[in-house]
Amino acid sequence: MIDASGPRVLKGHGTQNDFVVLPDPDGTVWPEDRLDAALVRRLCDRQGGLGADGVLRVVPSAHVPDAAGVLGDALADCTWFMDHRNADGSHAEMCGNGIRLYLHVLVAEGLLDEEQARAGVLVGTRGGPRRVGVGTDGYWVDMGAARPLGRGEAVVAGHTYPGTGVSMGNPHLVCLTDVAVESFDLTRAPGVDPALFPEGVNVELVNVLSAAEGPSGTTAHVRLRVSERGVGETRSCGTGACAAAWAALEAGGRSAGTVTVDVPGGRLAVEVTPTTTVLSGPAVVVSTGTLTREWLG
Amino acid sequence: MIDASGPRVLKGHGTQNDFVVLPDPDGTVWPEDRLDAALVRRLCDRQGGLGADGVLRVVPSAHVPDAAGVLGDALADCTWFMDHRNADGSHAEMCGNGIRLYLHVLVAEGLLDEEQARAGVLVGTRGGPRRVGVGTDGYWVDMGAARPLGRGEAVVAGHTYPGTGVSMGNPHLVCLTDVAVESFDLTRAPGVDPALFPEGVNVELVNVLSAAEGPSGTTAHVRLRVSERGVGETRSCGTGACAAAWAALEAGGRSAGTVTVDVPGGRLAVEVTPTTTVLSGPAVVVSTGTLTREWLG
Repeated sequence: MIDASGPRVLKGHGTQNDFVVLPDPDGTVWPEDRLDAALVRRLCDRQGGLGADGVLRVVPSAHVPDAAGVLGDALADCTWFMDHRNADGSHAEMCGNGIRLYLHVLVAEGLLDEEQARAGVLVGTRGGPRRVGVGTDGYWVDMGAARPLGRGEAVVAGHTYPGTGVSMGNPHLVCLTDVAVESFDLTRAPGVDPALFPEGVNVELVNVLSAAEGPSGTTAHVRLRVSERGVGETRSCGTGACAAAWAALEAGGRSAGTVTVDVPGGRLAVEVTPTTTVLSGPAVVVSTGTLTREWLG
Repeated sequence: MIDASGPRVLKGHGTQNDFVVLPDPDGTVWPEDRLDAALVRRLCDRQGGLGADGVLRVVPSAHVPDAAGVLGDALADCTWFMDHRNADGSHAEMCGNGIRLYLHVLVAEGLLDEEQARAGVLVGTRGGPRRVGVGTDGYWVDMGAARPLGRGEAVVAGHTYPGTGVSMGNPHLVCLTDVAVESFDLTRAPGVDPALFPEGVNVELVNVLSAAEGPSGTTAHVRLRVSERGVGETRSCGTGACAAAWAALEAGGRSAGTVTVDVPGGRLAVEVTPTTTVLSGPAVVVSTGTLTREWLG
């Protein structure tokens, strides 16, 4: 059989936001100078490599030189660090879909006790420490509080849709509409007033399938499509799901509730409170194996 | 570590025409009803699966129910069969890039003796038996004789380029041009007179970097980009490289010679004679491992 002595690699996804996962449990397999931008680009190349939206290196925080700088006092509480790279080779800060897959791999690989994962743990990311855990809806991550950014509008194929600006660390414009989201042509990014969003914005087009009801423990169900700034349409966006959930509740005059969010790549659940936004959803490993030495070179 | 007891899987490519490869050396792992169109589509899905242009099942001809029908008397000479599926789940006939990867896997997996591979062997495909082998330029396959189809023209971004029609089993329109192929916008398929190519045509835009010289053993060097019918631009097309080589030689009044063909995904070599077209080039396995049971379901 073909040589399988190369470094281990997994491919997986969270609601079809997909990643090449590189286990590096003692930090010796993929030091920074080996996992350089060129290799990340090769790994993420969909024809010439394994293909993915990004790379997740599973490594203890203690073995990541820049972890102390981004985690501060939380360093000691973050045993594991999500060393996340974008497909272009740059360092990424956080990804609500990626971190669920990261946690799934930690548990599946036996690197994190499942009991501990059910209670919730802190994982280090370049966006800071994040609380994650295993729940009834798959894996969850606290994405922090949503912050309103005012009103705006998006232009899709000549039609204008009013929207609500929401920051989840990154900016979103959530357009609730009665036009079925399936019918939109998102091959071009929606037009947005650059004066309102000088650094660009992710645009969510959202159908409210059932609105929140009852005074507390309210639930709603929405369906969305998303166009990410600089990327185009994607099958899922964790922060976009959170922003859409917040905006759907806000449209009904609520600041808290649980929203089921259908994205093209699957189903997410978002629990909104005034101070937190907890994103839950599935994560799956498609294949596990090794990179070949003939490809690594 | 995560469960690795699922069926084996490899991902690899030939000049970046990429495939999910499923070893099935005794025909029991992937019978037709298990490797159905839906599973092929899931495997080839670039976000939700492993992602590829197609699937290659590595299986003895004796275990493929329809092999006898397509191979006829050659069945006994074709120990191995390239059970090739397109990304949409349909059965594919032949692929000059895929069969090189197929042969590479046969040798790397120890399913075919390397000495035998150097001498050349017959491999069964749904397009009939194909002679393949290991050579100095990687892996080679005899793609059969090129057949002229007359003249035509392609329209790219409002400009018209004259071309030579060539059949390699499938139809090609090869446009030799002095306009640098890098400069073309191939996001839309080139326009071609449907009366000349009623079933559509693959269009190659070709720069001749150095023409063939000398009476025999002539060599030339071309660079091409290709737009495949029903697909759009691809990084490599085996039959397209053969058609371009033939047309480049023909333009110089030659019916035989060796042509180096640079495609976006790498470098191929094509040896043209009046009765054969031998395509040579690299093939690489990127990763080897197993599909997870959590993904297979």
